[in-house]
Amino acid sequence: MSKILVFGHQNPDTDAIGAAIAFSYLQNQLGKETEAVALGTPNEETQYALNFFKLATPRVVRSIKEEGAQVMLVDHNEFQQSISDIAEAEILAVVDHHRIANFETANPLYYRAEPVGCTSTIILKLYKEKQIEIPKEIAGIMLSAILSDTLLLKSPTCTSEDEAAAKELAAIACVDLTSYGLEMLKAGTNLSDKTAAVLLDLDAKSFPMGSSNVRIAQVNTVDLNEVMMRQKELEEAMTNEMSKNGYDLFILIVTNILDSDSELLVAGRELEKVEEAFKVQLMNNRALLKGVVSRKKQVVPQLTAVFN
Amino acid sequence: MSKILVFGHQNPDTDAIGAAIAFSYLQNQLGKETEAVALGTPNEETQYALNFFKLATPRVVRSIKEEGAQVMLVDHNEFQQSISDIAEAEILAVVDHHRIANFETANPLYYRAEPVGCTSTIILKLYKEKQIEIPKEIAGIMLSAILSDTLLLKSPTCTSEDEAAAKELAAIACVDLTSYGLEMLKAGTNLSDKTAAVLLDLDAKSFPMGSSNVRIAQVNTVDLNEVMMRQKELEEAMTNEMSKNGYDLFILIVTNILDSDSELLVAGRELEKVEEAFKVQLMNNRALLKGVVSRKKQVVPQLTAVFN
Repeated sequence: MSKILVFGHQNPDTDAIGAAIAFSYLQNQLGKETEAVALGTPNEETQYALNFFKLATPRVVRSIKEEGAQVMLVDHNEFQQSISDIAEAEILAVVDHHRIANFETANPLYYRAEPVGCTSTIILKLYKEKQIEIPKEIAGIMLSAILSDTLLLKSPTCTSEDEAAAKELAAIACVDLTSYGLEMLKAGTNLSDKTAAVLLDLDAKSFPMGSSNVRIAQVNTVDLNEVMMRQKELEEAMTNEMSKNGYDLFILIVTNILDSDSELLVAGRELEKVEEAFKVQLMNNRALLKGVVSRKKQVVPQLTAVFN
Repeated sequence: MSKILVFGHQNPDTDAIGAAIAFSYLQNQLGKETEAVALGTPNEETQYALNFFKLATPRVVRSIKEEGAQVMLVDHNEFQQSISDIAEAEILAVVDHHRIANFETANPLYYRAEPVGCTSTIILKLYKEKQIEIPKEIAGIMLSAILSDTLLLKSPTCTSEDEAAAKELAAIACVDLTSYGLEMLKAGTNLSDKTAAVLLDLDAKSFPMGSSNVRIAQVNTVDLNEVMMRQKELEEAMTNEMSKNGYDLFILIVTNILDSDSELLVAGRELEKVEEAFKVQLMNNRALLKGVVSRKKQVVPQLTAVFN
């Protein structure tokens, strides 16, 4: 009997990897045989956190073929963000903090979603409900996930539950929340050595909106200009991705983690919908969104509303 | 500001009504302003339970127009089983024990599903997690829901958690589980005074399967023959419902609650898929399914697999 695979979304971020590790450990303590895997190579921020807490990097899996057909999903549910052949899998459980869409099962399952800032915040609750002790390194990767998803607890997605969870986990992990978090986030902002194509794929998700297929990528930086100096190269790569994958609209959100603003760079059809959604006028395909840092809360619902 | 509406599925059964009452009460204790309503008149079994525990019958709501646009769903998630204009509503929470399908939101939400026999079993957990005391009459309607969904704890959908929950709730409600449960179930088996159309609509749900629209109704009885004597009248009503509502296949499950078997009566296209799903040969559009009592666990997945 194969192990049950536990994984987060494609283009994994720190929560996708961290929640998979934490949920898999919890399930194993409860008597299940599971393995945390990833649908892509961890980014530099996540790798920093894994190294810091001396955790093994989960192996990358691209298909459930030759693996067990039973899976547990964390930090996502939409099939187009999951493993390529997710429709063939038996989904036993989902733990997530996103909207539900393009998801279905033939059988009843365990599904736990809460509108908090990070999947790992929910997983901390599950540990408590099941009265399972959290090892130091697991607490460390869960803390990293919360700090990553909430940009050091500053994102509008951050709830009081995320903040309390982060403090509790920092104590178990024996780190200073703020200084550790800033070092971890900075480790993920080294963009200069990446090609435009790699940069666009670091943290990108596809969203069906109305009849359109919208790709939304996000990168963190400490210097917006450094990224926007590469506008031409980025636009070429966006156009290339669109024609290759059938996206109708490509939005790159470049987020300054120090001052919590974002600049959009957009390509594709229906650019007027972007203007309508964010009440901005695009200049040279760009727009500055003051105070916007959350794709989930400040970008996807606004765009979805305009497309529907 | 309107109250948040809490409701179960169309053609409400005792769990749809009971879980709505119990979840609404819990949410109100937690500071939300909610009202338990129903998407149809309670059946006789449910009315027996409401009367027994001296609970008011929830008012029937057919549309969220002129109501609040914020809703919480219990005991269902599929839009075609929900209120007619569910797509206009903001779904804040779902508590359910069914597969997830034909469900989507624009925003993150609270979603709690577990593969147990009854929504009210999950709601009992929520009361404990939030440390809210359960009033006697609320415990009574939750117990009724569990006994109804699990046919006195005998259905294959019944888990050890449902059994433990039923015992705990029976103690709070001060009733003998078995004798109360049998009286309640029997109150729902009085079919003789109902027209075929009413009988088919008592507990019926629609399921998109492949490209087909499948309607599956279930009735409980203590005498299969009493129902099947009306086969001709039932078949005419099924055919009528199909042409009126565009169903491709109509399945009536007649369940004997005393010996835990069911007889199917089917009408429509693709009857061979019914034979394939249950490995039976239809005789006169009927087939006896020994040991089958659960639509959710013993009928829907088997049929879905054949249609996909």
